[in-house]
Amino acid sequence: MLSAQRIYKTNISFEEALHSWHEFINTLIPVGPEDILVVDSLGRVTAESVQAKISSPFFHASAMDGYAVRFIETFGASESSPIRLKLHEQAVLVNTGDPIPGGFNAVIMVEDVSLRGKFIEIIGPAAPYQHIRTVGEDIVQTELILPENHIIRPVDIGAMLSGGNVLIRVRRRPLVSVIPTGNEIVSPGEPLKTGNIIDSNSFMIGNLVRQWGGEFVRPDIVQDNKDLLKRSILDAAGQSDLTVILAGASAGTRDFTPNAVGELGRILVHGINIKPGKPVLLGSINEKPVIGLPGYSVAAHMTFEFFGKPLIHRLLGIEPEPPETLKAKLSRPVASSLGHEEFIRVKVGKVGDNLITTPVGRGAGALMTLQRADGIVRVPAMSEGIAPDSEVEVTLIRSKREIKNTIVCIGSHDNALDVLSNHLKKKFLSYSMSSAHVGSMGGIMAIKKSEAHMAGTHLLDEQSGQYNIAFVRKFLKDIPLKLINLVYREQGLIIRKGNPKNITGIEDLLRDDVVFINRQPGSGTRLLTDKCLRDKGIPFQTIKGYDKEEFTHMGVASAVLSGAADTGMGILTAAIALGLEFVPIANERYDLLIRKDYLDMPMLQALLQIIASDAEFRNTVSSLGGYDVSDMGKVVYEQ
Amino acid sequence: MLSAQRIYKTNISFEEALHSWHEFINTLIPVGPEDILVVDSLGRVTAESVQAKISSPFFHASAMDGYAVRFIETFGASESSPIRLKLHEQAVLVNTGDPIPGGFNAVIMVEDVSLRGKFIEIIGPAAPYQHIRTVGEDIVQTELILPENHIIRPVDIGAMLSGGNVLIRVRRRPLVSVIPTGNEIVSPGEPLKTGNIIDSNSFMIGNLVRQWGGEFVRPDIVQDNKDLLKRSILDAAGQSDLTVILAGASAGTRDFTPNAVGELGRILVHGINIKPGKPVLLGSINEKPVIGLPGYSVAAHMTFEFFGKPLIHRLLGIEPEPPETLKAKLSRPVASSLGHEEFIRVKVGKVGDNLITTPVGRGAGALMTLQRADGIVRVPAMSEGIAPDSEVEVTLIRSKREIKNTIVCIGSHDNALDVLSNHLKKKFLSYSMSSAHVGSMGGIMAIKKSEAHMAGTHLLDEQSGQYNIAFVRKFLKDIPLKLINLVYREQGLIIRKGNPKNITGIEDLLRDDVVFINRQPGSGTRLLTDKCLRDKGIPFQTIKGYDKEEFTHMGVASAVLSGAADTGMGILTAAIALGLEFVPIANERYDLLIRKDYLDMPMLQALLQIIASDAEFRNTVSSLGGYDVSDMGKVVYEQ
Repeated sequence: MLSAQRIYKTNISFEEALHSWHEFINTLIPVGPEDILVVDSLGRVTAESVQAKISSPFFHASAMDGYAVRFIETFGASESSPIRLKLHEQAVLVNTGDPIPGGFNAVIMVEDVSLRGKFIEIIGPAAPYQHIRTVGEDIVQTELILPENHIIRPVDIGAMLSGGNVLIRVRRRPLVSVIPTGNEIVSPGEPLKTGNIIDSNSFMIGNLVRQWGGEFVRPDIVQDNKDLLKRSILDAAGQSDLTVILAGASAGTRDFTPNAVGELGRILVHGINIKPGKPVLLGSINEKPVIGLPGYSVAAHMTFEFFGKPLIHRLLGIEPEPPETLKAKLSRPVASSLGHEEFIRVKVGKVGDNLITTPVGRGAGALMTLQRADGIVRVPAMSEGIAPDSEVEVTLIRSKREIKNTIVCIGSHDNALDVLSNHLKKKFLSYSMSSAHVGSMGGIMAIKKSEAHMAGTHLLDEQSGQYNIAFVRKFLKDIPLKLINLVYREQGLIIRKGNPKNITGIEDLLRDDVVFINRQPGSGTRLLTDKCLRDKGIPFQTIKGYDKEEFTHMGVASAVLSGAADTGMGILTAAIALGLEFVPIANERYDLLIRKDYLDMPMLQALLQIIASDAEFRNTVSSLGGYDVSDMGKVVYEQ
Repeated sequence: MLSAQRIYKTNISFEEALHSWHEFINTLIPVGPEDILVVDSLGRVTAESVQAKISSPFFHASAMDGYAVRFIETFGASESSPIRLKLHEQAVLVNTGDPIPGGFNAVIMVEDVSLRGKFIEIIGPAAPYQHIRTVGEDIVQTELILPENHIIRPVDIGAMLSGGNVLIRVRRRPLVSVIPTGNEIVSPGEPLKTGNIIDSNSFMIGNLVRQWGGEFVRPDIVQDNKDLLKRSILDAAGQSDLTVILAGASAGTRDFTPNAVGELGRILVHGINIKPGKPVLLGSINEKPVIGLPGYSVAAHMTFEFFGKPLIHRLLGIEPEPPETLKAKLSRPVASSLGHEEFIRVKVGKVGDNLITTPVGRGAGALMTLQRADGIVRVPAMSEGIAPDSEVEVTLIRSKREIKNTIVCIGSHDNALDVLSNHLKKKFLSYSMSSAHVGSMGGIMAIKKSEAHMAGTHLLDEQSGQYNIAFVRKFLKDIPLKLINLVYREQGLIIRKGNPKNITGIEDLLRDDVVFINRQPGSGTRLLTDKCLRDKGIPFQTIKGYDKEEFTHMGVASAVLSGAADTGMGILTAAIALGLEFVPIANERYDLLIRKDYLDMPMLQALLQIIASDAEFRNTVSSLGGYDVSDMGKVVYEQ
């Protein structure tokens, strides 16, 4: 028995892991029921069928304003021989919805009746039960209103109440314990010391549980100690329907989860050939499921979607609605390691008729790339990558409508774009803007290939001393477009507060004690740096840190703030944002490049309206510091 | 001013009403903010943008297990001239995730290092910051994490916490007062007297509000009195963002809503040319919106979707996700009155390659028809109806996946079908069964036209005395199909308890004091009735109530129970369900007719498995009474 428990699958394929897990899940039965008020049952799942306790209506009701009569007393009435019925005895006034008095069995509409003192006069017979909503016309007593395993909607609440139900039996919410582990972990809001990591994962995972209809508890953070961990897992497994252990599932010296679970119960799977998410652990303790998730946020989120989502749904007795998918063209190649199933986060944009998808960062810890992703592309284990322009299937995170209503901005990064993105969403609820920071040249290429609606660019032409226009004419010469100014901005060397290394200009980059942080090739800032270096005759290879590249101004500023570098080229705004100092080098024009094909789209019109005339936007950008907004919205060039 | 307030639009078109309402809605601003814990913010809407308060990571962290070094001290190292670094002083052991000690700026992986007593030996230089997750690699301090007007997801919670946010500012939930009105209205669970109506509508409407992200309060039920109503509306308008008044908005004598709203504020629209929903009222009090909804449930639900949904979303600062639509072929003609925009509830089924849509009942009060509907078809005001086989656009209530996974059963009604439907959903979470009760002949025609997967039928061939087979051979002769027995069941005259009219057989229908309730033409039960009458030589027209038709056995039983009729032909099961008595007439075979094309579909296989071998299903059907299940699942005929 004991030895059998220790035979588990390790480093298996994604398919095998899913298969084993679903085999186990299918042995589980839904969680027990609880009785709740119908009026508070929205979104809950029925644990047994709901029948009508009474009919609706439960009495014969008039469907018209008129007179209740006995149809037998109306027979023979005609225009030539009208019949008179005595009020109160043979004819009773009823309004719509009123009960039909006992013994009466038809209603004659008020407009078909003449009042004659204490009588009404009718000129036609009434059919049995005409203009009467008979008992059970809507719902018949005993009728099935909801089957078991049904997710309750507002209309169901209406129907259950009308059918006389007050309390119903629903599945209780599956309870999930999410145990954070690790000496370095601290709770949100606690004071932070160097080396600490904020426990965001347990709340992210717990809120996935909530989203799927369960609830979660978060036991105390467990220090790196196997006995403490075992005690916490055992407690959790005793009281909850699923126990999730965060981190500690990989192969490091402090990763106690596999041993703890193995000693307390059964490991089904440990280690799956997927990226991200390799160290995931699946098992059970007393036939209750246990999942050990990787510590990196993206890996934890994605593997919990794979393995936690079907489980929670199974416990609720419902099927998860499968995510939307679409086919899109890959804008850049994706490299992938053979033997691992990879899940690549992507942005998707609808530009003209093209659905274009662009991979975003891939680190297992890069949560912002998941947070900003539109979907996931799966790269099979037997593939070494996907060529650009391939059609790929994207499993969507955002809806197709949201994707269609998103302005795709690919190009140079500027902090004012963040402000613009926020303003757009604030003023025009249905529109969003997504930015990919690939540098000015990358933006120009994206416009050329119809992969972006818009590109931010600040490319200095060394010959003319002008920005952008020469590059547009050279690379986009046949494409009708407009170049619209967003801001002028100061570029310079970002330095630490108090300038401890006494940096005063480009020449200081030559110094042995100065570490530089660079921007990626193709960015306008990189071109500016290289031009300045050439002007001064400084060879690139002599600069320490020239090879270390960041993709945004804030990345450069952040490297300086943290001491990773002493200085880097960037915009004054970024220096101000992080409380750094600045040596000015150039004042440059940052423009937005928009193809004329897309100019008339309502979402681009909305964006241009903000740029051209929104005082609040202009003021917010100005207040960041380092910007001149006097030409904001001005068309500086068109072709 | 006063007179201007009284100029409002009445009996206008749907488009005009939507236009006026959206014009008003657009003057409203989102509700104010409240501060909540990030960990509890799932599904809430940001009231301002959320930025990172700290970077993530906020310290340089080792990305590998290895040694932290100063890269400058590694320059020149090679296989031919290794460099030794003194442990603790020049090289510090770090695990993945550990902070890099002050002054160190690169990590060499443990496998690239040889331990030499108190030194490590390296054979290559380290690049600046190699194997280090630098500060801000995931999130840079000040970075925009969420824009304003964003609906918060679990991944957003993770990102906000990682970025050092603990409290954030979200929009409070818009508060809606839903006021029930009417002397006849009682709260769910209260004792019922004849004439009472259970107030299901305020909870149905209130739960729509919840579903859209708001919350609701339900003031006391207001009696039919204008002053009381005015007081209640004024209270509600003072404390809530939207006031909804239920019923009282039509033109009857007790409908005080228009006067009350007109005197307290402004009526924008009263009366719209739509069915259902004509009496709707739209207005405002002190620039706060007021909606008067019709009293009939379906009308209330549908008009609140039209006018309440965009409003609640506006108050939250988000756009409603538009519903899914699909094109389907109309199976039956739809008549519509010229001048009214009609919204027809429909069922949709995917049968083979056909998407077929079938209108269901149309009463404004028939909540079950909305509860069971798959979607809505709009019939324009200028149309007198839609011809059968037309392609129509259906706005979906259920998802496309659910519709695809639904077995469409059209034909005769039997209570065992309700049990079957519930069992299917219980045992196979992803499948549903939808039944339309159009009688046995209607079912045969639906099979012929590929509008149903399955039909329930019990048609007695007078010549052979056999059930179903002769009809199948006659009407479906070229279609491969199977006829599978579900039950044998007793048909007879359903009578009231104690048999007060002393009904003992078909001959009693001739009596003057006996009112009959019939079934619709084309139903097997109608054929049985007519056959019995012919056998006894009773002319149909002498029977009182012969023209009044019900569509189900339960409808007939219900009519008898309530006294609307003295007797009707139906199955014993229906009599038992409502505690009625029964005069047996015939023992008939009720079969399911299934086209062979569809037999292999997994959902039909699942259904057949239940019929053939599910003991729980068999027992439940038996326990209803009146059934013989000995041939259940047996193929009685195939072609």
